[in-house]
Amino acid sequence: MPPTFGVTQYLAHFIATTRWDDIPPLVAHQAKRSFMNFFAVALAGCRTNPVEIALRSLAEFSGGKQATVVGRSERIDALSAVFLNAASANVYDFCDTHVRTVIHPTAPVAPPLLALAELRRVSGPDLLIAFILGQEVQARIGLAISPNHYSRGWHITSTCGVFGAVAGSCKLLALDKSKMIWALGIASTQSAGLCECLGTAAKSVSVGNAARNGLWAALLAERGFDGPPEPLAGVQGFYNAMGEPPKLSLVTDGLGESWEIMATSYKPYPCGFVIHPVLDCVLDWRCANPKAVVERVVVRGHPLLSDRTDRPNISTGRESQVSVQHAVAAALVTGKAGLGQFTDACARDPAVLALRGKVEVVRDPAFTTIAAAVEITTTDGKTHKLSQAAARGSDANPMSDKDLEEKLRAAASDWNLRRNTQSLIDAIWTLDKSADVSTLSALTVPHG
Amino acid sequence: MPPTFGVTQYLAHFIATTRWDDIPPLVAHQAKRSFMNFFAVALAGCRTNPVEIALRSLAEFSGGKQATVVGRSERIDALSAVFLNAASANVYDFCDTHVRTVIHPTAPVAPPLLALAELRRVSGPDLLIAFILGQEVQARIGLAISPNHYSRGWHITSTCGVFGAVAGSCKLLALDKSKMIWALGIASTQSAGLCECLGTAAKSVSVGNAARNGLWAALLAERGFDGPPEPLAGVQGFYNAMGEPPKLSLVTDGLGESWEIMATSYKPYPCGFVIHPVLDCVLDWRCANPKAVVERVVVRGHPLLSDRTDRPNISTGRESQVSVQHAVAAALVTGKAGLGQFTDACARDPAVLALRGKVEVVRDPAFTTIAAAVEITTTDGKTHKLSQAAARGSDANPMSDKDLEEKLRAAASDWNLRRNTQSLIDAIWTLDKSADVSTLSALTVPHG
Repeated sequence: MPPTFGVTQYLAHFIATTRWDDIPPLVAHQAKRSFMNFFAVALAGCRTNPVEIALRSLAEFSGGKQATVVGRSERIDALSAVFLNAASANVYDFCDTHVRTVIHPTAPVAPPLLALAELRRVSGPDLLIAFILGQEVQARIGLAISPNHYSRGWHITSTCGVFGAVAGSCKLLALDKSKMIWALGIASTQSAGLCECLGTAAKSVSVGNAARNGLWAALLAERGFDGPPEPLAGVQGFYNAMGEPPKLSLVTDGLGESWEIMATSYKPYPCGFVIHPVLDCVLDWRCANPKAVVERVVVRGHPLLSDRTDRPNISTGRESQVSVQHAVAAALVTGKAGLGQFTDACARDPAVLALRGKVEVVRDPAFTTIAAAVEITTTDGKTHKLSQAAARGSDANPMSDKDLEEKLRAAASDWNLRRNTQSLIDAIWTLDKSADVSTLSALTVPHG
Repeated sequence: MPPTFGVTQYLAHFIATTRWDDIPPLVAHQAKRSFMNFFAVALAGCRTNPVEIALRSLAEFSGGKQATVVGRSERIDALSAVFLNAASANVYDFCDTHVRTVIHPTAPVAPPLLALAELRRVSGPDLLIAFILGQEVQARIGLAISPNHYSRGWHITSTCGVFGAVAGSCKLLALDKSKMIWALGIASTQSAGLCECLGTAAKSVSVGNAARNGLWAALLAERGFDGPPEPLAGVQGFYNAMGEPPKLSLVTDGLGESWEIMATSYKPYPCGFVIHPVLDCVLDWRCANPKAVVERVVVRGHPLLSDRTDRPNISTGRESQVSVQHAVAAALVTGKAGLGQFTDACARDPAVLALRGKVEVVRDPAFTTIAAAVEITTTDGKTHKLSQAAARGSDANPMSDKDLEEKLRAAASDWNLRRNTQSLIDAIWTLDKSADVSTLSALTVPHG
């Protein structure tokens, strides 16, 4: 494309002209891994309070039963299903992360595509390429204004997620370039979401909206609903309104040559990422020393570990997700660090409480955020020195395919999913061979 | 309230504690005038292309027939009806204006309240006070960051409209203060809308969303969906993200003592406001001189008149709304300046085209934006000098109650509303006496 083209036009051209053959096999495989992780976290989140309330509220206005709500027997209209599935996937902050932008990239993008697959015939390769392109567009739009956009209070998963949702939806709908530009404009005028809402139910509204509104933007454009020619870089467009001078070269340079989905991290534990290397140490030690009685624990890590998670006194599941004392204590008591370890009940468990008081945190700028060292002193007077250089799930030590399968199995069993989860796992790994993915989401619905 | 209270808490307190007795009679009357204007502009806009497309799209996802779409026989779920009615009211930019912020204040606030009136029992005074408080909250939140917020590209009717919609809805639902703060938070994280979309269908999306999402925020909070304690002024809240240091005293000072709804302007003509004083002159002259043949017209006005509307060559109805040459020519040819004078057909009418070329615009900084002078030279060689110091509809020369009734009647007849519009007019003027306003919107539905 000549450099005089507007950045929106550039993106539309990229979305419209990229073909399945252009996608490297490793990129397609990473997309499958992201779907595996998506179903795990959506199953984990689908019965939380924000999702329950939003579902009951939306059901009052919806007559349709077009689309699956992941993990639930209720069906609902496609726009509402998209909202709910995005909210479910992100509600625990257990979903994937595009590290350079801190966008959680799959929650806004997967739900609209899965809903479209229930409305129209969509093949596995169609789904995967739309998903990969949606992630690419959303990450690049965000990269151009990172990190300032997020740090001034914009919830970037929401503000950029609407672009990922619309880009993927446009690709699945095979819109022409003009309509794609309209769709990107209709999405841009719905870009919203504040970090102030993190830690409350309101967070889920902007994430759900990003997914829902991105899909709706594409559907409106398909019907001829128009928008401006340059919604991103226009003088009253997205970037100018957001007040952050964009590095537009980060949007356009090397498009189709590198793939942002490859920079995705997946989380093995549903708690703050800085706690993860600590949990790696503690869980491995407990596995090797199941009977040892702990007297004292000293955790050493990057200053962010103490700044963000040195919280010995917490009382709710939500708070426990950002307490290193709780995470260590719960892992030592139960031998696990899954969803069950970050509940209100676990936060108040007397055995966990007792151990929490024995955990000390030390700031050490010598550590990276993905590294930590732990010293465990046991009642027999021994001290056990443990360390982790690169947390599981980090770029440098990614979760394996099997790890992701296990994460899905654990989430499915947690919510009494009485279907063989293996069929869902198999369907994800063979997505590129599937001619019709309309039943994929329904594999998450409990029997009976 | 003590000054240490957060601004959101302050607003919630104001919404929760203001009673009908606190509303001065002139303020209540102005609210009725705004409803009169709302039904006029919503009837005018309800069959435009953006509304038609959005209705067809939303109908695919909606099973409910809960609420009226103004001016149409279709019924739809309440959230979708709210979206559509707000879009209809604003699509022509023929709606009211809060001059200091340039918010169009009624389009986002009236639809959620009218929809709630169809879902639950609402009296006329309930409706009016919720409407007045919604307008107050939205105007004050906008005032604190005006004019910079709008001028950097945020469509303030949309970004602040969601607060008006939520504030009014909270009042009608009689939420307690805690839930109101949650609702304001759920609204804040949905605040969106770009001026770049003006002049395209996409504009209607952010306006419709503001109304719909404001109502939904209140309904979610009613069910216990929580949000942050200070969504407006929190460190990662609305104002900080928007990047405009707010003058918070403009939000809180004198709340309940003055009323922003009193600063509303209504438009007699569906075109750019700077053209209005010119049209006043031309229409009065044509009425007094129905047979005179025009040779030349010289229009003199504020520099904005020529900067924004000196467009002798236009071809569409949308463009004609910002062409002073077209407006003058169409008014001289037809003797009117209603919706029929700003259509594609009128923009291409040969008689109008011929006259358009005879209209000249002169910049004159001595004029205000609401003043103009016009010299009309007729073929008999006479020159007629006309002037308007304060345009009809401006603060200094407001539209009368009768003018607003006529605006409603004209819009109703334009769309073949085969019901006696008088019943709607009567219902509006007697709102303060009504025990149940559930049928108000339905008075706009065409018979048969």
